[in-house]
Amino acid sequence: MVPIPNPSYPSETDLAAMVEGTTTAAQIPFGEYVFRRLRQLSVKSIFGVPGDFNMNLLDHIGSVENLKWVGCCNELNAGYAADGYARFSRTLGVSVVTYGVGELSIMNAIGGSYAEWVPQLVIVGTSPMSKKSAPGQVHHLVPTRDPYAVAPDHHVYEKMVDGICIAKESVEDVNAGVQQVDALIEAILANVRPGYLFLPIDLQDALVDSSRLNIPLKTTAVDSDPAASKQVAENILEKLYNSKNPAIIGDILTDRFHVSHWVRDFVNRTKINNYSTPMGKTVLDETNESYIAEYNGKLSNPGVKETIEASDCVLHFGSYLAETNTGIYSSDFDEDALVLLTPYYVQIGKKLVKGVNFSHVIKHMLELIDISKVPTPVRPVGINTIVNTPSPADISQTFLAAQVEKYLQPNDVVIAETCSFQFAFSDIRLPKNALYFAQAFYLSIGYALPATLGIGVAMKDSGYEGRMILFQGDGSAQMTIQEFATYLRQDIKPTIFLLNNNGYTVERIIHGPNQLYNDIQPDWDWRGIFKTFGDKEGKRHFTKKIATKEELVSTLADEKLAKQTQIQLYEVILDKMDVPWRFSAMQTL
Amino acid sequence: MVPIPNPSYPSETDLAAMVEGTTTAAQIPFGEYVFRRLRQLSVKSIFGVPGDFNMNLLDHIGSVENLKWVGCCNELNAGYAADGYARFSRTLGVSVVTYGVGELSIMNAIGGSYAEWVPQLVIVGTSPMSKKSAPGQVHHLVPTRDPYAVAPDHHVYEKMVDGICIAKESVEDVNAGVQQVDALIEAILANVRPGYLFLPIDLQDALVDSSRLNIPLKTTAVDSDPAASKQVAENILEKLYNSKNPAIIGDILTDRFHVSHWVRDFVNRTKINNYSTPMGKTVLDETNESYIAEYNGKLSNPGVKETIEASDCVLHFGSYLAETNTGIYSSDFDEDALVLLTPYYVQIGKKLVKGVNFSHVIKHMLELIDISKVPTPVRPVGINTIVNTPSPADISQTFLAAQVEKYLQPNDVVIAETCSFQFAFSDIRLPKNALYFAQAFYLSIGYALPATLGIGVAMKDSGYEGRMILFQGDGSAQMTIQEFATYLRQDIKPTIFLLNNNGYTVERIIHGPNQLYNDIQPDWDWRGIFKTFGDKEGKRHFTKKIATKEELVSTLADEKLAKQTQIQLYEVILDKMDVPWRFSAMQTL
Repeated sequence: MVPIPNPSYPSETDLAAMVEGTTTAAQIPFGEYVFRRLRQLSVKSIFGVPGDFNMNLLDHIGSVENLKWVGCCNELNAGYAADGYARFSRTLGVSVVTYGVGELSIMNAIGGSYAEWVPQLVIVGTSPMSKKSAPGQVHHLVPTRDPYAVAPDHHVYEKMVDGICIAKESVEDVNAGVQQVDALIEAILANVRPGYLFLPIDLQDALVDSSRLNIPLKTTAVDSDPAASKQVAENILEKLYNSKNPAIIGDILTDRFHVSHWVRDFVNRTKINNYSTPMGKTVLDETNESYIAEYNGKLSNPGVKETIEASDCVLHFGSYLAETNTGIYSSDFDEDALVLLTPYYVQIGKKLVKGVNFSHVIKHMLELIDISKVPTPVRPVGINTIVNTPSPADISQTFLAAQVEKYLQPNDVVIAETCSFQFAFSDIRLPKNALYFAQAFYLSIGYALPATLGIGVAMKDSGYEGRMILFQGDGSAQMTIQEFATYLRQDIKPTIFLLNNNGYTVERIIHGPNQLYNDIQPDWDWRGIFKTFGDKEGKRHFTKKIATKEELVSTLADEKLAKQTQIQLYEVILDKMDVPWRFSAMQTL
Repeated sequence: MVPIPNPSYPSETDLAAMVEGTTTAAQIPFGEYVFRRLRQLSVKSIFGVPGDFNMNLLDHIGSVENLKWVGCCNELNAGYAADGYARFSRTLGVSVVTYGVGELSIMNAIGGSYAEWVPQLVIVGTSPMSKKSAPGQVHHLVPTRDPYAVAPDHHVYEKMVDGICIAKESVEDVNAGVQQVDALIEAILANVRPGYLFLPIDLQDALVDSSRLNIPLKTTAVDSDPAASKQVAENILEKLYNSKNPAIIGDILTDRFHVSHWVRDFVNRTKINNYSTPMGKTVLDETNESYIAEYNGKLSNPGVKETIEASDCVLHFGSYLAETNTGIYSSDFDEDALVLLTPYYVQIGKKLVKGVNFSHVIKHMLELIDISKVPTPVRPVGINTIVNTPSPADISQTFLAAQVEKYLQPNDVVIAETCSFQFAFSDIRLPKNALYFAQAFYLSIGYALPATLGIGVAMKDSGYEGRMILFQGDGSAQMTIQEFATYLRQDIKPTIFLLNNNGYTVERIIHGPNQLYNDIQPDWDWRGIFKTFGDKEGKRHFTKKIATKEELVSTLADEKLAKQTQIQLYEVILDKMDVPWRFSAMQTL
């Protein structure tokens, strides 16, 4: 399990993990089969909450070498954590929840994984097969509307999830079940989106033939028509050779399909001007001299939109044309100039080629490219200046952003909550090999705090050495605050900037700046949280209030604190109406 | 809005509220229409979380007299709070959430309202009509699986909720919308179960004709065939007159259909031996000399099952034959003896009468009964003894239960979380006019803490003077802990017994007593919570650890603390494997 900067994934780790996941026992419990499969795919941590219908399954985690349980405070948080784990580790995130109460609670996290292309396997422990058609109610299971029904519909919850997953399997028999598990995992990995496994409690211990574990799973989408992929690559290159001022956009699905290293390689060899997107930040190396700016339609910094849209050949790798990833559809490209490379199709100008996955096309492009035919790049100058916004507070968001940019180091792992400051990250050029995570389209507040748990666990699982830095709003923090306790339990030590701007600033800008509904309980003792949640003596964390520019600058410059020997929580005081310019501008689009 | 002991609901309050809910303006915004309708039904508080797609709606709360917004820390908690509000106030609970991220987060609370017959209106602010069929993604909205779809399915979330609600309405036009709102509210009230209103953001301010507000809504199920109801009542009375040792069970739906006062009246006039159920606790007056015990099949206290099952005429009012309400279906009644009175049918012995609502039947029974024909009751003796369980901790759950029984006062409002101690309440005889709330069938841990917020707000809204006492487990507390902040914000002052038994004791008994997955972060500073969540100075709450019998007895006897002038939180130390006998016994059924 290796993070983005290292392109050695997946083959080496797969081989190593396959040894760990396999067993010599002829018959193993179904639950163990599932967990061995996951271990083969480099999964080392399982997130979730125990419940009456999943504990037999949980027993089998301990049977698999180097696989562990990470108990979370509630299911929504567990789903967010598993999402974070998947984003960092680039294998599946796995969450285990119980029937009804657990699976309904986790749904919003899975909606987020689906909307943002995160491969998460949700395993729901369900009512036993022995009761599925028996008369009588079962706790956690809603009755049917029909008052005369003798039995409830035990599959009622399974029917709800089609819109938020790529695949689901409901096990009724363990022999068919092992095939269902394999097919489900392959579907999740091929589509990098969540899938559901519904596993009755009385099948979790049932024995299955373990020899199937020796059949390797497909870990990526298969190239069903290599000739077509190659042809598309040739067509794109031809277009590139004939262009005058090409540009590259590195977008989120490049990361999700694990081909960022190929796009970086393509950039390094061609030296074409390249741009990120809000969701695709850190796909590209922002320290590269050919890297220009983040592109986000009309919400780009001054000059960026005009420059890239003047290109006659824009290679948009891994494009995800989501509202918040396109400046709310405010792009204005020449239709003939644009090449969209996506997991299901490639569009070259007006020509749409269906059934081609860009992750195969980019590989052919690297093999086929003749660098001598690529036009010599011309770097734009004087663009991408940062728009300052004033604030009545001593620290403005633009000042904070500038300081954060200086503070960040190579290999840092940065997580930005859905809060107004997330929109400042477009202004922050990240250092080499830094990673950046945010739920920038689904935008469910409360996501980042538990996701940071999952990312932190994944960093530990892979031995990653970089620092971990969370930017967290106050209104969003209260949604999922209890998961700070699990930071202590799992001994992860991020540096947390708790941005206290007195409520829902994002919402104040959108509507009702002074309405009661945009306030929160005003007197949270943010700096007391870790003491209350488990570090009574205060030995495992450090906390400080930062209300002035001087305090901010001196704190960020403190070398002692730059190392992450304990959790650090800085409460940064911001004004309740101060937001990055582009967030205000977004309201007018 | 009057709690159970007072039978004057609904007519008086309806009349008073109707004045408050009506307006003289000819045209009012759609959102205001919705809130005026709710105000007519005695709703005074709306729970929820603001979001991009509901804030226009929220603006209209302030336009209605005596209606207020109760912002919660997250949507699941808001749903639980609205559920609690409905249970206490006996009108609707109302929650407002935003598109996708909010509506998926609240689902588990609504599943609970549905399973436990709680009327909750969930209002979801959705994407604007103007975008519903336009190309392009919208944040919070998952894309479709079809990669070539030009637009997402804006109704994807609406399609998910059929299994957890009694009715739903998706507004597309405000003129039809007002009728939809009225029909939805009537369906919720008639069926006492949750319903969904999906309201696009661009319709929330649109003007509608307010004159419709003068048409009163039906607040209860209509008796569609009064002659049939009367006939059923006569048949039941005939059976009663011919019996030798009748018994009455007062069950949960008696409460939910607001006819507990009639059942109490029936008990008082006939003096028939009467029994509660786990879900129907406080339907009956447990201080009445004719009240015998809680009946729960094989999980009843010694002698109870045999005594009631020997009856030749059991009138089971408002029966809800849920697993946890029937001793996991361990009843053994003479089929001919049993009369089940439910909202959709009445079963007299082997005879099923469909389409009759027991709430109308009971009224006829009261009108028609000839007391002289009712057999003279014989009180059972020597039954319903409490089974003691030992504990390695100084305070056992049985000791605690005995002390709690002494501590409780008339009019107390007691809330028991889904935790092992909930199963001790079957042993606790409640004082006169006490109320008891628990999610005893759906059993979603984390419910009670936010539900207590909703109940507390409802108590304030109705001017109820009784004390409020929450019994909360530690494992369940961490699920929804942030809502303690809203206790401070709303100034509700319950006495909280935080039962610290070091993790998920309920789960330890079911499976894996010493498994890691049944542990939680061990060092929560439970007594520090309110300080951290808003009462920094400690002036608004009192907290104390209770580890010994002496500490428990002296604390509960302290008259100063008996009054609720501030929040009280007692951390009670219990053993991690100590549970009431019936919870262990349940595992063997």
